[in-house]
Amino acid sequence: MARPRSYDPTVALDRAMHLFWEKGYADTSMADLVGATGVSRYGFYSEFGDKDALFEKCVAHYAQTVIPRGLGPLEAPDAGLPEIDAYLAGLGRSAPSGTRKGCLIGNTATAGLTPTAGVADQVGRHYERMRAAYRNALANAADAGDITGDPDALADFLVGVVNGCLASFRAGVPETSVQAFLEQARRTVTA
Amino acid sequence: MARPRSYDPTVALDRAMHLFWEKGYADTSMADLVGATGVSRYGFYSEFGDKDALFEKCVAHYAQTVIPRGLGPLEAPDAGLPEIDAYLAGLGRSAPSGTRKGCLIGNTATAGLTPTAGVADQVGRHYERMRAAYRNALANAADAGDITGDPDALADFLVGVVNGCLASFRAGVPETSVQAFLEQARRTVTA
Repeated sequence: MARPRSYDPTVALDRAMHLFWEKGYADTSMADLVGATGVSRYGFYSEFGDKDALFEKCVAHYAQTVIPRGLGPLEAPDAGLPEIDAYLAGLGRSAPSGTRKGCLIGNTATAGLTPTAGVADQVGRHYERMRAAYRNALANAADAGDITGDPDALADFLVGVVNGCLASFRAGVPETSVQAFLEQARRTVTA
Repeated sequence: MARPRSYDPTVALDRAMHLFWEKGYADTSMADLVGATGVSRYGFYSEFGDKDALFEKCVAHYAQTVIPRGLGPLEAPDAGLPEIDAYLAGLGRSAPSGTRKGCLIGNTATAGLTPTAGVADQVGRHYERMRAAYRNALANAADAGDITGDPDALADFLVGVVNGCLASFRAGVPETSVQAFLEQARRTVTA
């Protein structure tokens, strides 16, 4: 297999992951992936398998390396309302015009793209982890008297809000309208 | 062009629309469309153009024939909280296990599928119409004293809720969790 001397498989996987994250699964071509990873087209299949197999590896890599940055603060033992606020504010910055590009797993799931059973499994686990993280912070906020709603119902609510935000940005809903949605969602949580 | 004697172009368009609605744009093949419309493969291009051109016609047909059933009650001069309630209840029945299949235009938009500029235009107009319909019913509900929130903010909120519902069902979020999201959204509207 033709590997350039400086080839690093972890760097290659990371580059492929960022490409899928930026362009989306459907719009990422084999030529894009070959270019980003630096593997020759001939070596690609023995290194990564086909596009779907590499996508599955990228989703796992994303769950291990990127998701903890987003959900970690909500999963902390002392997480509460400030962490929920910061998370919702971050969602608002995931507009197409902004510096973020949504969530690779959330984008994939809400677009109905689960090309392999392995990706579908990871999507399912991701949503369970998300809901558990929200519930943790919400339960602490309720214990602290910062919110009065039911942490379980509000955790389900926040899952819908995140999906609504990702889907609205993708649908081209005006950014001011999505921000109003998120502000109302925050008022609902703290009501 | 080979047209069966009983061929009716409006029936053919309607069948193509239902196929796109059920299977989604990406998973609907030319063979599916030829089979559903009853036009020969040779005659297809002169009758409808390519798949994207037919999809654009189907989205327009859907906006004219199906959308009024969903938004009509909210657009009525006397629409109010009961119409909003009925609409949110209908959303809950759009689960993949249910009898409905979401909204062709909403599904297309939230999946990020706008294969032609004409479809993108129609998606934009659809979201404007949706938001105006919500605002109409919400303003009446506020005038009647049934809700205390701001109709504009709540109209933006409902756009996000609809997108969140469609996206959550597509992401495979458990139906009970989506129902909890919708119930919380309803409590938010009537707070």
